[in-house]
Amino acid sequence: MSYRAQVGEFAFLLENVVGLSEVTATPRFAEATPDIANAILTEAGRLCEEVLAPLQRPGDTHPARLENGVVRTSPGFADGYRAIAEGGWIGMAAPADYGGMGLPQTLASAVDDMMSGACLSLQLSPLLTKGQIEALEHHASDEIRALYLPKLISGEWSGTMNLTEPQAGSDVGALTSTARPNGDGTYAVTGQKIYISWGDADFIENICHLVLARLPDAPPGTKGISLFLVPRNIPDADGRPGVANSLRVVSLEHKTGLHGSPTAVMDYDAATGWLIGEPHKGMAAMFTMMNNARLGVGIQGIGVAEAAYQQALAYATERRQGRTPLGDGRGPIADHADVRRMLTAMKAEIFGARAIALSCAAAIDMARATGTADWAARAALLTPIAKAHGTDVGIAVASAGIQVHGGMGYIEETGAAQYLRDVRVTAIYEGTNGIQAMDLVGRKMMDGGEAAARLLDEIEDAAETARGTLPDLANAVWAAAESLREATEWMVAQEATDRFAGAVPFLGAWARVLGGHYHLKAALAEGGAGRRTALARVFVTRLLPEHLALIAQARAGAQALYALSAEDLVA
Amino acid sequence: MSYRAQVGEFAFLLENVVGLSEVTATPRFAEATPDIANAILTEAGRLCEEVLAPLQRPGDTHPARLENGVVRTSPGFADGYRAIAEGGWIGMAAPADYGGMGLPQTLASAVDDMMSGACLSLQLSPLLTKGQIEALEHHASDEIRALYLPKLISGEWSGTMNLTEPQAGSDVGALTSTARPNGDGTYAVTGQKIYISWGDADFIENICHLVLARLPDAPPGTKGISLFLVPRNIPDADGRPGVANSLRVVSLEHKTGLHGSPTAVMDYDAATGWLIGEPHKGMAAMFTMMNNARLGVGIQGIGVAEAAYQQALAYATERRQGRTPLGDGRGPIADHADVRRMLTAMKAEIFGARAIALSCAAAIDMARATGTADWAARAALLTPIAKAHGTDVGIAVASAGIQVHGGMGYIEETGAAQYLRDVRVTAIYEGTNGIQAMDLVGRKMMDGGEAAARLLDEIEDAAETARGTLPDLANAVWAAAESLREATEWMVAQEATDRFAGAVPFLGAWARVLGGHYHLKAALAEGGAGRRTALARVFVTRLLPEHLALIAQARAGAQALYALSAEDLVA
Repeated sequence: MSYRAQVGEFAFLLENVVGLSEVTATPRFAEATPDIANAILTEAGRLCEEVLAPLQRPGDTHPARLENGVVRTSPGFADGYRAIAEGGWIGMAAPADYGGMGLPQTLASAVDDMMSGACLSLQLSPLLTKGQIEALEHHASDEIRALYLPKLISGEWSGTMNLTEPQAGSDVGALTSTARPNGDGTYAVTGQKIYISWGDADFIENICHLVLARLPDAPPGTKGISLFLVPRNIPDADGRPGVANSLRVVSLEHKTGLHGSPTAVMDYDAATGWLIGEPHKGMAAMFTMMNNARLGVGIQGIGVAEAAYQQALAYATERRQGRTPLGDGRGPIADHADVRRMLTAMKAEIFGARAIALSCAAAIDMARATGTADWAARAALLTPIAKAHGTDVGIAVASAGIQVHGGMGYIEETGAAQYLRDVRVTAIYEGTNGIQAMDLVGRKMMDGGEAAARLLDEIEDAAETARGTLPDLANAVWAAAESLREATEWMVAQEATDRFAGAVPFLGAWARVLGGHYHLKAALAEGGAGRRTALARVFVTRLLPEHLALIAQARAGAQALYALSAEDLVA
Repeated sequence: MSYRAQVGEFAFLLENVVGLSEVTATPRFAEATPDIANAILTEAGRLCEEVLAPLQRPGDTHPARLENGVVRTSPGFADGYRAIAEGGWIGMAAPADYGGMGLPQTLASAVDDMMSGACLSLQLSPLLTKGQIEALEHHASDEIRALYLPKLISGEWSGTMNLTEPQAGSDVGALTSTARPNGDGTYAVTGQKIYISWGDADFIENICHLVLARLPDAPPGTKGISLFLVPRNIPDADGRPGVANSLRVVSLEHKTGLHGSPTAVMDYDAATGWLIGEPHKGMAAMFTMMNNARLGVGIQGIGVAEAAYQQALAYATERRQGRTPLGDGRGPIADHADVRRMLTAMKAEIFGARAIALSCAAAIDMARATGTADWAARAALLTPIAKAHGTDVGIAVASAGIQVHGGMGYIEETGAAQYLRDVRVTAIYEGTNGIQAMDLVGRKMMDGGEAAARLLDEIEDAAETARGTLPDLANAVWAAAESLREATEWMVAQEATDRFAGAVPFLGAWARVLGGHYHLKAALAEGGAGRRTALARVFVTRLLPEHLALIAQARAGAQALYALSAEDLVA
């Protein structure tokens, strides 16, 4: 089975569903014409199919390992990384001033999707570098930017994020790493950080760690956290990697999947670092990186879902078992109703999640290009949905892919199970999906639900318009959006604990309604008849109804949960 | 984290929810008084906690392997197996005539649940042996029974099932293994079989393979399949394992999980076998074994869910992150609403799935004890639900267990991920969950839905009775049952393809309604107030509403699925 880049699918989505034309109508992104976009997608697709996809299995069977303090990467990863870097893919959306292409995030996200499907464990390294580029672009001094951005954009150097400590995971504010001024403008950073993806690699010239730590006079909690850039090798006067910094990889984690990505425990022992942004304002700077990375992680889920779907479909259209209900009855198992139910649901899920993620990317582009608060609020609203739902879809589709394979799905050599093992972490890292949902009902509803209401208005307006062509689908989407509006209004009015008790299903309901909305748009784009309409009907009749249960759960409140004491949970 | 056997929980379920008292009111099972039952559960619980649970991790980290044709098992498994065998646990429900205890399946199923939670990969061997005991009990000659049953019941020998061939999985009728008469009453069995769980083991004196094969004059398809007993070593005149039979383990599969259970490719080269049952009637005999095994596999899912829940709960009541909404705000993460949502849902799911499985076991006991068709039909109806839902719950709860752990859940040493990797196969083996659902809407509805209607009558009657005490829960369960009745009537009236297109969600809707019913029974048993009522409220307000979406999906029909051509699925 080989991965096929869905170039045509992205072209359709960008043109008809997520509004790339609106993005390219702005002066900032005027160069990204449809022709340019297609040329880029085609070139990225070739890289994914020919260079990256062949690395997927070796990355699993030959994990990155630590040897004498050096991370030895999986076979072929060095060449794959070089191809990504030399193709300019890391700097696709980075500013042209530093060597980037300045292209829309919408287009870069489509490329991320393909690269994630081809080889997730390798793609994670550039994804983190891109987040670091953005953080430095917005928060670093001119000097730091001039030195680091060209190296990061070219991929000669790579970036990591260092937030987590053993006692500080979701509660970042509990971290205890310290930074003391050296008196020369640099800082001595000390502490242990865990879960550092691509914390080191034998094929990258220099690794740039963004590390959260506390200055000596820092207040407690998240308000006392500062951000430091701590390179593995300290750049010399010519900007080349110089002497080794005082940091090391203590160990690599033995993970369920994503074996090709070295996950390091990092030790910083008075390592030399540079403050990025203001003292004690590290969380704000880190959020720049995290928001980018959160959308990126959602897209990872979708990319893996695509790859898992393709493999399951290939198997289901080859494998023959029993009499099928079509034609002469000798068709492949894809013709059996239950297998087809799984395959169509997988495909419909991927479309919906992908449209959500690309719409989020388009909103980011519009916010950048226009500077308007409404677009920024749209991007902020969609980010946790894109992250949590994209990764949930990744897990669900990968698991369904195993199921389509039957017994073969449980045999490692098939590769179907690797998708599930790899993608499982995406629901956890960059903020667990529970954290995303709490962000949605917390921070993202602090406007009283205004941004949400505006999006629901759009969804309902579109459904009204679609009523003439596709009344069954349009009515269902409209009604679901209206239920979601009521649930959103209910949510905004609750205390935090009641909101949090329903946050995950509430986010799920949003994903269902948005999925229905984008499927409807796709169906209308082909005139209300054809394969996209058929897929929309699968989504609306089979997946959209889940909003009923999700909204009931979202509105159930916290009381029933706390009626069980901690002792009751054990009993 | 150590596994705790839920002895009190089983005692409650058996007494108040699944009707063990009705079983023990029959002459056949009169000996299984509550005191006896509790003594047995306590003893089994001790074995699980002290002997079997410590084998769970070594079974994963030190997989069974093939060395010079011999299967070397994981460290400690030999002792664990011996403890199971010597405790008499394999023969718990087997006939006393051959050394069994003749106890109800209901009680044996509770023990299976605990053993699955303690160490799934080891528990699988006795589970298969129990299926073989039942197949031989009902279909083998007196001579075969006298020779084999005591050895299988004592655990000196073990049993396997050999159905699958590379081209014949769900389509058993496609198998091509052959059996030719040797002229002395035995047969020469030839063929290759795959996915043979516990196909060999270095600690078992003899392995007895039940092999499906075709006699020379066999008609095609499932009507030409016969069943043969093919021991690894041919018993000598004294009934001891004699000369080696002409069969071998070709290889062991490299699986995603369940590493402690050797999954063999078996080659039979004119191996000596004995016909079990009538020629060409092998499927009927194999179904005896499979029905037993299907319930057993559903229980495996539940047992693993229990273990995964316990581990997640232990972590969530230790780990502290951020300010919690209870007390002084310094509580563990279990006090956060979203974590509590996950934990309570896990617990409510386990209760529901367990009640379904134990009710299925009780129906099997009642059918055996009374010989009535209604009880047999009840058991037949519940078996696919118990299998598919039990394993779905196993997967969902194990995945939630990872999520509760956050990043730690993805690190293999934690053990949380092993539960997901192990339990994933239970939705596939013994008939995929899709096959179970097709069995439910196919064979199990051939009575026109009569058995289903009788069960729905009971559920609605119970809800009516509960209305005075718990009107909110009772009304919700009654309404859901009524929707399910309509869906069942709709289902019975459809063509096969439309039924199959909705089979999996239809089975899911049954599981939701049954879960609500059993939770309601439990709540009533404590007088409508207390921890069981609180858990019932979690189920009814948060999980039962899923029946709305499931019934919509069940009744959606096949048309939308086939509106997408095979080419559309690729595009």
